[in-house]
Amino acid sequence: MFDPTTLTYNDQGLIPVVAQDHVSRDVLMVAWMNAESLARTLANGQMTYWSRSRQAFWEKGATSGHVQRLRELRIDCDRDSLLALVEQVGPACHTGRRSCFYTQLIDGNEVIISDVMED
Amino acid sequence: MFDPTTLTYNDQGLIPVVAQDHVSRDVLMVAWMNAESLARTLANGQMTYWSRSRQAFWEKGATSGHVQRLRELRIDCDRDSLLALVEQVGPACHTGRRSCFYTQLIDGNEVIISDVMED
Repeated sequence: MFDPTTLTYNDQGLIPVVAQDHVSRDVLMVAWMNAESLARTLANGQMTYWSRSRQAFWEKGATSGHVQRLRELRIDCDRDSLLALVEQVGPACHTGRRSCFYTQLIDGNEVIISDVMED
Repeated sequence: MFDPTTLTYNDQGLIPVVAQDHVSRDVLMVAWMNAESLARTLANGQMTYWSRSRQAFWEKGATSGHVQRLRELRIDCDRDSLLALVEQVGPACHTGRRSCFYTQLIDGNEVIISDVMED
């Protein structure tokens, strides 16, 4: 059985996680987990990250309702990053956009390429 | 004009970069850049990372030929991670697989889901 502690964490005990929409295949966000948040995620199938700013578990969507359900979890060759294919309810981004990657470099300028989602 | 130094880097001066195949939309790898490797990437359109293990610039594919050409660069809301849509020549992974995320958790076990590419 998979043991979350066998992954390679950084000196703060964290591993980066790429959340990708399992249908559209858009990359939604990059966030961080520690071994315990990964264990919680695997236990209930809801993405739970570690908030570096709050230094606390961050159960994605717990207050907003914009939960991420885990569909598939992949581990990279170095075991130091994770890819989560998720079912995203509403926006993934705190700005209300579907993806956090809504700024694109076009001809050397930053351009916002997606709108805030309608309720 | 975009200035790479305006991004938020970690205490080692690095930012995580998700490389996604611009056609298949597979997530290929997660690697790291500092401001100078990002500047080099933008200058010539070839992904240049910072190798944490070698503490040196890592011009992806310079020896293997498995280069990544940058098609689109996106910045996330917190300006602390990047998404690069790339044109990948051959495998992205040093194991010879297309993506570094070739291990999937299935029913609690790690399963290799993709093969080494043919030459």
